[in-house]
Amino acid sequence: MFESAELGHRIDKETYDREVPKLREDLLNAQYDLSQQSRFPVIIVVGGVDGAGKSETVHLLNEWMDPRHIQTHAFPDPSDEERERPYMWRFWRALPPRGKIGILFGAWHSAPIVERVLSRSKSAKLDQSIEEIIRFEKMLTEEGALILKFWFHLSKEQQKKRLKALEKDPKTRWRITETDWEHFKSYDRFRKVSEYFIRQTSSAAAPWIVVEGVDHRYRSLTVGRLLLNAMRERLAEKPAARLPEKKSPMLPRLDGKDVLTSLVLTTKAVSKEKYNREMEAWQGRLNLLTRHPKFKEISVVFVFEGQDAAGKGGAIRRVMQALDARVYQGIPIAAPTEEERAQPYLWRFWRNLPRRGRFTIFDRSWYGRVLVERVEGFCSENDWMRAYSEINDFESQLVRNGTVLVKFWLQISREEQLKRFREREKTSFKRFKITAEDWRNRQKWKPYHQAVCDMIDRTSTEIAPWTLVGANNKYDARIKVLRTIVGSLESAL
Amino acid sequence: MFESAELGHRIDKETYDREVPKLREDLLNAQYDLSQQSRFPVIIVVGGVDGAGKSETVHLLNEWMDPRHIQTHAFPDPSDEERERPYMWRFWRALPPRGKIGILFGAWHSAPIVERVLSRSKSAKLDQSIEEIIRFEKMLTEEGALILKFWFHLSKEQQKKRLKALEKDPKTRWRITETDWEHFKSYDRFRKVSEYFIRQTSSAAAPWIVVEGVDHRYRSLTVGRLLLNAMRERLAEKPAARLPEKKSPMLPRLDGKDVLTSLVLTTKAVSKEKYNREMEAWQGRLNLLTRHPKFKEISVVFVFEGQDAAGKGGAIRRVMQALDARVYQGIPIAAPTEEERAQPYLWRFWRNLPRRGRFTIFDRSWYGRVLVERVEGFCSENDWMRAYSEINDFESQLVRNGTVLVKFWLQISREEQLKRFREREKTSFKRFKITAEDWRNRQKWKPYHQAVCDMIDRTSTEIAPWTLVGANNKYDARIKVLRTIVGSLESAL
Repeated sequence: MFESAELGHRIDKETYDREVPKLREDLLNAQYDLSQQSRFPVIIVVGGVDGAGKSETVHLLNEWMDPRHIQTHAFPDPSDEERERPYMWRFWRALPPRGKIGILFGAWHSAPIVERVLSRSKSAKLDQSIEEIIRFEKMLTEEGALILKFWFHLSKEQQKKRLKALEKDPKTRWRITETDWEHFKSYDRFRKVSEYFIRQTSSAAAPWIVVEGVDHRYRSLTVGRLLLNAMRERLAEKPAARLPEKKSPMLPRLDGKDVLTSLVLTTKAVSKEKYNREMEAWQGRLNLLTRHPKFKEISVVFVFEGQDAAGKGGAIRRVMQALDARVYQGIPIAAPTEEERAQPYLWRFWRNLPRRGRFTIFDRSWYGRVLVERVEGFCSENDWMRAYSEINDFESQLVRNGTVLVKFWLQISREEQLKRFREREKTSFKRFKITAEDWRNRQKWKPYHQAVCDMIDRTSTEIAPWTLVGANNKYDARIKVLRTIVGSLESAL
Repeated sequence: MFESAELGHRIDKETYDREVPKLREDLLNAQYDLSQQSRFPVIIVVGGVDGAGKSETVHLLNEWMDPRHIQTHAFPDPSDEERERPYMWRFWRALPPRGKIGILFGAWHSAPIVERVLSRSKSAKLDQSIEEIIRFEKMLTEEGALILKFWFHLSKEQQKKRLKALEKDPKTRWRITETDWEHFKSYDRFRKVSEYFIRQTSSAAAPWIVVEGVDHRYRSLTVGRLLLNAMRERLAEKPAARLPEKKSPMLPRLDGKDVLTSLVLTTKAVSKEKYNREMEAWQGRLNLLTRHPKFKEISVVFVFEGQDAAGKGGAIRRVMQALDARVYQGIPIAAPTEEERAQPYLWRFWRNLPRRGRFTIFDRSWYGRVLVERVEGFCSENDWMRAYSEINDFESQLVRNGTVLVKFWLQISREEQLKRFREREKTSFKRFKITAEDWRNRQKWKPYHQAVCDMIDRTSTEIAPWTLVGANNKYDARIKVLRTIVGSLESAL
């Protein structure tokens, strides 16, 4: 893996001085086009051996190009807000939007490698991280990102020489700390672990590029050229170029039976008195749970999905009533903002994840991708087909991080929906709840039905199962929601 | 202050039930118009005595209106990211954008009052907070926000009764904690401090509205009606309605002397060797300072302003070269994003403030308000005139929070600019640095000159002085920048 980066590559000064002005001009041109097109972000990941020119390269790229369109991020000590979310949260925070270049200095690869080198984690943990990273990068590239991962390498002998040279020079002495020498002691182990890591996380779409770090001219020219070519190639692609749509094989419903048709929608009516009594009991229990001493150690995410008028809002309000306004945040999902549109579709959900000891209640969610976006054709079949596993990845990160995730699908019958639409039109203060769009969506009952069934089949997992709620009877539906929530929290605490 | 709120206001059930449906409809209507117009945000601040119906009101508003256009925020224990920024940072984070309603439950008023009641702060500190809050709310209202501040009140006797009643009822028992009873013990002191606070922070634009909290129907109807009327009134205002422009009295420059014309622009040329030597020395010193044990306790903000081609980018790069990429963030200020446009103009600077132990380097800054926006007429004279004191408020919050703030104005002569523009046009990789806009701005040399002089006069304060840099000689300018930065950091550490 590192053989080609230990050959003593070198570029003479003359060649370098001749090449650089043209390269800079071309890079600036590419950067300009990138910004104009605003179709994709460029993510440059910088990793490798200490002393191999990582920070020099970060500075150089900022010097060669227009730094106003480059966002440089490094990831030292995480803040508590970062520690309280899944590992990837801080990287999501730092993703460049379309049209910009993001340089990530020591990104998601660093911690897994270092932890393993220092034997703070087992190899199984490393493999889990690798798996997570592969899937994350795959998602990024499929969302359009151009990812360039540079690994700057030095042989053991070269690193020793380099550290000594830096230490000798009064101008650079400050850059060498004890940590560097300590790291040097574990060079062999570091090399072994990172070789394995690089091999495992080099995919076709986002391979690691190992660059020999000894000669700064060779290193700089290599990175500059590679970056330029990669950007040029992507910029030249026709915007419309998409993978040919392939019909994915989905389970046909031969006998008309599916999870929704099998669901009992109308339960026997409970009296208002009984409902009030039960509701109060469940709300009280839910509230008590938030006072549990261990509650401060978990995060809670509720997802409410369902047809128009299925009663999401009402159910959410009953949940909120039981909670102190200090511990929850309700996030209604409507059209994304400009900043959100410039990022992968999961970005706006990541940015709203709760800290520990808090709830986030999503009124509609990331499932829009496989529901409305699928049915309305807002994204391609490839896009929504891959979303199932992307969503499962996302949710498993949440759950592994100690988040209690509860997902509800509220289902009503077509007749019940019609009844509710009509009621809404009649009740003056409910009129805003019914729009032309609701009527249009109603016309697409069948494709939505299909999309919901597929969604449940593909994303109801052991760690994050869907709770299907037959919601023709509002009282009953709300009680079921509260009961499920209390059950999930009780088993978590 | 509280007399009217101890009269035993009461609304009978019949009246309430008759009024509410219409009120809800009207509120929904107003909310819909608010969202459609998207001209201003509504900020509802909820404060008052425990047990007086604060959280009930928060819930009620979410129930009466469309909760998808309401953002509710409460402010318990601040996170470390919040503690490392000025006090107001967490509230800036929670401001609703134009077109939305934000309910702030226990906002900026809470901590100053509670700290004072518990004698954790002196009265001088309380007065300082009051001053800060008045100015903050003034800025918000001038930026267009509709602010409604509700104070829910109970007499001592009423509070005691209320707490006991809540405690007795098994359904609400959980809501009363020891803290509530402890607070109750200091009722008189709480009343005294909050009376003073309410009096001092009630301005014409954002007065406190004291609501008697005993009767839930009276309380709810009062809040609902007030909110409705306030929203209606603002919605009915013509969008174009602006204060009449008044020419503000500004210092005339009778003798043609000003801070810029008095500045030496061309210093005697230093040799490249001397420059390199000095630059290295300063960069080394700067870097050493970031390793100072106390550095982790301060934040650093650099502001770079100057004419086009004055050398801001070059100077910033020399600063960055001295810094570990892990400790700084460069923020170039260009056109604001949609989310930024929906907020007061200072919002996008607040969101980029550094944590402790970090630098933020602004390439252009909040001074755009009194420079380009003034000269190009992007905002009214009222807007940029008030910006001076708003900016001073902002900067004094930074400095009080332990931020080292250094502001540079780089000044070149008209001839030097022309020379640099021409050079840029010739040098292939610099061509992107010169646009038609630069040539247009150059035509407005005089109004910009005036705007810069006014800016310096009005915002060069003891706590945040401007450093004027004659920048015809690039080497010299950069050395001066580095020297100033090192000086500021040394005296802070």
